Amino acid sequence: MRDVAVIGIGETQFGELWDKSFRELGIEAGLKAIEDSGIAAEDLDAIYVGNMSAGKFIDQEHVSALVADYSGLADQHLPAVRVEGGGACGAIAILQAAMAIASGMHDIVIVGGAEKMTDVGDVQAGAILSATADQEWESVFGATFAGLYAMMARRHMYEFNTTREQMAQVAVKNHKNGALNPHAQFQREITPDMVLKAPWVAEPLSVFDCAPLSDGAAAVVLCAMDRARKFSDTPVRILGSGQASDFLALHDRRDLTTMDATVVAGKRAFHAAGVTPDKVQVAEVHDNFTITEIIAIEDLRFVKKGLGGMATEEGETALNGKISVNTSGGLKARGQPVGATGVAQAVEIVRQLRGEAGKRQVSNAEIGLTHTLGGTGATAVVHLFGRMN
Amino acid sequence: MRDVAVIGIGETQFGELWDKSFRELGIEAGLKAIEDSGIAAEDLDAIYVGNMSAGKFIDQEHVSALVADYSGLADQHLPAVRVEGGGACGAIAILQAAMAIASGMHDIVIVGGAEKMTDVGDVQAGAILSATADQEWESVFGATFAGLYAMMARRHMYEFNTTREQMAQVAVKNHKNGALNPHAQFQREITPDMVLKAPWVAEPLSVFDCAPLSDGAAAVVLCAMDRARKFSDTPVRILGSGQASDFLALHDRRDLTTMDATVVAGKRAFHAAGVTPDKVQVAEVHDNFTITEIIAIEDLRFVKKGLGGMATEEGETALNGKISVNTSGGLKARGQPVGATGVAQAVEIVRQLRGEAGKRQVSNAEIGLTHTLGGTGATAVVHLFGRMN
Repeated sequence: MRDVAVIGIGETQFGELWDKSFRELGIEAGLKAIEDSGIAAEDLDAIYVGNMSAGKFIDQEHVSALVADYSGLADQHLPAVRVEGGGACGAIAILQAAMAIASGMHDIVIVGGAEKMTDVGDVQAGAILSATADQEWESVFGATFAGLYAMMARRHMYEFNTTREQMAQVAVKNHKNGALNPHAQFQREITPDMVLKAPWVAEPLSVFDCAPLSDGAAAVVLCAMDRARKFSDTPVRILGSGQASDFLALHDRRDLTTMDATVVAGKRAFHAAGVTPDKVQVAEVHDNFTITEIIAIEDLRFVKKGLGGMATEEGETALNGKISVNTSGGLKARGQPVGATGVAQAVEIVRQLRGEAGKRQVSNAEIGLTHTLGGTGATAVVHLFGRMN
Repeated sequence: MRDVAVIGIGETQFGELWDKSFRELGIEAGLKAIEDSGIAAEDLDAIYVGNMSAGKFIDQEHVSALVADYSGLADQHLPAVRVEGGGACGAIAILQAAMAIASGMHDIVIVGGAEKMTDVGDVQAGAILSATADQEWESVFGATFAGLYAMMARRHMYEFNTTREQMAQVAVKNHKNGALNPHAQFQREITPDMVLKAPWVAEPLSVFDCAPLSDGAAAVVLCAMDRARKFSDTPVRILGSGQASDFLALHDRRDLTTMDATVVAGKRAFHAAGVTPDKVQVAEVHDNFTITEIIAIEDLRFVKKGLGGMATEEGETALNGKISVNTSGGLKARGQPVGATGVAQAVEIVRQLRGEAGKRQVSNAEIGLTHTLGGTGATAVVHLFGRMN
């Protein structure tokens, strides 16, 4: 397999962007990534698009061709592929594009992730998110997306004495990081008290335990490693990747406090990369709810099982802590335009490994990780990225 | 790049299957393909799912994980990926899976395509199909999917003197083939008069010029060529593939009577395979409308531009004609469960190349082609398959 590098990154502002359409967001991120990479549009071999549910959010399927067209690339007749796997779609798109390069089929590929969620009302958007859980066995009985994660939180509190205060610290940390990220949806700090006293969404998760609905897009340009130096002085190599699936419905899983898809995807990625979790300085993990980040850092073996809440409380995952987690602000503060998530995570990690993260720069960041979930954890994708010295 | 072979095929009955759910259809096709291939489920490295719009048809996104789960494979935690590109999604899924094998990431991959369209009403289903055209510039002004194709038909009639009688012959031929296919939705022959006197859907396209709404699924097992003989005495090699995109909306295209995406995808596939169109004995091409098959056989260079109608009328594309087109009955008679289309086409070609097509067997079939469209031709995928001697 050929090695693959990231040579360009781009992202839009994240937030409630009522004056920008899906196609405008996708194109903006893509053009920024192309400009950053130094390639010409003619150098592109293919387009991959991560998108969860444009069909339901904006009534448009076939967004792969849409993006190719509105990027001004229709005349190149590039292969354009949309991939979906719930919230993991952006990360899956990166993996598919990397495989296309590794196979020799393509040399340079752009991967975009985008979602336009705020054109529908909040209730409808919540229902659309629930469509990534099991509609026949969960949603139909009234289980909301937040409700399913609330059950995981409850069980984690019961098994490991995880506290609401510890979960609140995830939100506090990610808002603190988000305040340093000019692209983030929320750029102000919050206090633990604000989380604890906010209205319930699904007990024990309050409004501030939940990532927002967002519009936004992100893009990366991938290139075969043997050509990357031609375009970039700071290519970032994809060291290894892993993807895994699990039972779609929560009630079939062996354990509510562990996501086996994350465990397996993590093992596959670390094995492929030939590194261990303690070698990672910076990670973007899926924090659609505060409990999700706690479970993720445990399942990725950054901390021992059950100690995710305590590690967060003790600052181990803070900026320049033992491992810096969600320096972008995460889904919680950067925002959660679902299709963009996995790609935006990669953008942040590349920025950190290049040393271009400004006020939120992690010192001596050499290896970074992204972790992205679909649904309530029935899909997980892990990528490891490394700085080239 | 490693060579890739098809070692297993499976499909469900196609039709209005009100007593079977999406997940039941997907699993049935997948298990048939696994059984046909002779592999054990444990041999699988990954799952790819082609699906256009489960989010809108059955309110379920994240069907990749759903299929992995309901196949009884959740414990293997396989990477499961859904790809979408309008009606081309099944063919794109095959291409992605083949690249995953070619890259060395995987050895054995199952590709399923499925759609459950008849749980919603006809009008709503039509609107969902239109979501693969440009919603902001076509559908919003009232253009239906059939209406857009009707414009192509009108222009083709104007430019090349193509007649309604010639278009009707596409339907007559494909119904004749479908009558020989026990999995087809329509297994009875029709007359030209039935097509010509049927009610308009969008003039000049009558009901019998249009493929039906359908439920169904198909699956193929792909394997690295160097391991294929272990499982199969009759592996069918993927000789080459091509995918291309085009302007999403018809009004931006340079010509209404040619689909540039088909032309380019065809050239890429023939180039990759190192063969020419005259070497192909059997082809499954996208015939969601009768005019589409006429345009396709021209754009794939099976006949000269403008002569597709005449060639059909003269029997060149009939079973064991100069080139046998849509021996399965095509979308027109086999049925058109959108996500299944590209995979079902591959199933038919493999069956023909193995010599297992029964009453509709093409004699001496050595090279076969599939051609699949997304939307009104903004995506096209062409695969070439070859018998191993």
